[in-house]
Amino acid sequence: MMKQTLGVLGGNSIGVALADSLEKRGYPVVLIEPTGELSIPLETIKFVFLCVDSSQFWSVVEETVSFLTKDTCLIIHPTVPIGTGDQLQDWCDQKGLKVVVASCAMMEIQHPSHIVIGGQANHPKLKELRHIMLSYDVPILMTTRKEAEIIQYTRNAFLATKMSFINQVASFCETFGGDIQTIARGIGMDPRIGQGALKAGIGFGESLSDNLLSLIEQGKQNGVKTPLLEAVQEINDVQGDWVKNRLRRELGALEGKTIAIWGVRDQPALDIIEQLLAEGMELHLYDPFLSSDHSFPRNTIWHADKWKTVEQAEALIILQECQPFQEVDLLHLKEKLNHPLILDGRNLFYPDMMDMLGFRYIPVGRKV
Amino acid sequence: MMKQTLGVLGGNSIGVALADSLEKRGYPVVLIEPTGELSIPLETIKFVFLCVDSSQFWSVVEETVSFLTKDTCLIIHPTVPIGTGDQLQDWCDQKGLKVVVASCAMMEIQHPSHIVIGGQANHPKLKELRHIMLSYDVPILMTTRKEAEIIQYTRNAFLATKMSFINQVASFCETFGGDIQTIARGIGMDPRIGQGALKAGIGFGESLSDNLLSLIEQGKQNGVKTPLLEAVQEINDVQGDWVKNRLRRELGALEGKTIAIWGVRDQPALDIIEQLLAEGMELHLYDPFLSSDHSFPRNTIWHADKWKTVEQAEALIILQECQPFQEVDLLHLKEKLNHPLILDGRNLFYPDMMDMLGFRYIPVGRKV
Repeated sequence: MMKQTLGVLGGNSIGVALADSLEKRGYPVVLIEPTGELSIPLETIKFVFLCVDSSQFWSVVEETVSFLTKDTCLIIHPTVPIGTGDQLQDWCDQKGLKVVVASCAMMEIQHPSHIVIGGQANHPKLKELRHIMLSYDVPILMTTRKEAEIIQYTRNAFLATKMSFINQVASFCETFGGDIQTIARGIGMDPRIGQGALKAGIGFGESLSDNLLSLIEQGKQNGVKTPLLEAVQEINDVQGDWVKNRLRRELGALEGKTIAIWGVRDQPALDIIEQLLAEGMELHLYDPFLSSDHSFPRNTIWHADKWKTVEQAEALIILQECQPFQEVDLLHLKEKLNHPLILDGRNLFYPDMMDMLGFRYIPVGRKV
Repeated sequence: MMKQTLGVLGGNSIGVALADSLEKRGYPVVLIEPTGELSIPLETIKFVFLCVDSSQFWSVVEETVSFLTKDTCLIIHPTVPIGTGDQLQDWCDQKGLKVVVASCAMMEIQHPSHIVIGGQANHPKLKELRHIMLSYDVPILMTTRKEAEIIQYTRNAFLATKMSFINQVASFCETFGGDIQTIARGIGMDPRIGQGALKAGIGFGESLSDNLLSLIEQGKQNGVKTPLLEAVQEINDVQGDWVKNRLRRELGALEGKTIAIWGVRDQPALDIIEQLLAEGMELHLYDPFLSSDHSFPRNTIWHADKWKTVEQAEALIILQECQPFQEVDLLHLKEKLNHPLILDGRNLFYPDMMDMLGFRYIPVGRKV
């Protein structure tokens, strides 16, 4: 049976990933730009995934949704405030559009562990949508639109909580002694906790942070106090200072000093780079997944060869977890580094081994 | 092969549970009272579990440990401050005692999911201890003493965090709409989160709370900030007001009003009872697991028959989760209650069904 064509309207990064992921499951996908031309008539597209950022949501709705055909199912990926699905349904109803709105909460768009679909469970269109999403071959939970939206936000918030929690424990380890990797393993053996997202480091990045701040803001606007979420963000903010503080403890004044940084693709690495530049440091950057035509932070020096970065460096700082770093030739690295000081924001190596190799090795969550 | 005799020194509630649990696994257990007589000579007991509360720890050590024989392995269940195991080992070494100290972190003493043993992994005595604990037939992680202690505290703290987190989400649901049970189910489907300890209600009890406050205090004394742990406790404190606030919203002034309370065995139920008594309410209590010779809070009225409690009541409040409540005859309850108002602090029933039966049903985490 030929699978029906699905539309992705808007197309932020989530939209692009979703389009790719649906195509991989055998569905023809049409990307619909709010003002662009279409390769096939809108009438033929009965399922449209709305993937626009919160700030553009209603303008895209005004521009495009009212031109959507009859009998369309419009699916919101809930990165919009809680209640948006219901509001959009009301808006469509008032306009007399025969559009059915659903809110679909997925994490890890390429390989979700489960999918939550919010909408009128008994509506034939929702049943069809459920059938489409069954192609992911994972459990599907049917809820109301609002519940799917709350699930998306709070699930992200919980993962952020778990990360800030283990970073909080890491600061206990740095004071009391004890190795955070061992402790995380011990905590995670409890089946009510689990190992996932229990990794100490320099904190979580922009997308979890945006999600958290948005949830805090939605609480504030509706009189819900959010002390736990605020503490999660507070720990993450402090965690970003970890590199600077440790570096100062090791090197003294930072101004004019030269260091190498490996792994600079995204937050929180970019925030840390900004901090160190503000201290007047000279930064040599390397990232195996970026090339020289990438736009790097101003006043930094990019190298395509990782060994070049460390030649003059007084320390190496690792900010990303990836295989090329995990598998680096440590003996060669030891030779290349004039000052064998490594600050590891991702806890890639065994401290005992690093000590044995003669490094001054500083991971997160260990008394040094 | 005959299993060797194990000692349990002290014998607080954890000690009693541990003795019972070790006996079930085939070990003869001797309870050692610090000042009491012993049925067999101390010399024959080579493994002694030290189960005393933090406040009595060092006095019991002074009184008893120095009389422990040679070649004893002393195992601390870590409800003592982080670092106590190391301190005790130093103390024994200075006294010239041939005692090896281990810290053993177990949750759910009767049926642990895993066991953490902290101590010198290569010491023959520790290997023997590991062998004894293998009788639980669960994974065992060997760590340092300090790590085992940190794991015990932070694992409890994480479970408390998970509970406060879902209660935080419940307050979102009470404001935005959405059913907390559905949302918890959706969040818990993420394998990095899981369903365990994700149950909204009137908050966690004394033992998790004591653990949390102790960890916060240990942080404070050592310059570790603990915003996340403090927020977890803050949410739990507020959650205790849930019954009073909801009741006031339903009944107006509380003074002189008569209500029934089911489930009064422990915290947080006891705190809530104190709060309602302070408001001048008349409380009729029932708990299927208590009898009339139990000491109930002052000025409350105890009934051995649950139906008696609700006869004059203007509301029924459920504070504990147990089968007899879950399986109560709801039609009969509806007949008995003059005012069919139920506040359910444990979310035992389906709200839709309760509405259908004609109750005014108020669970935690649902807009009503």
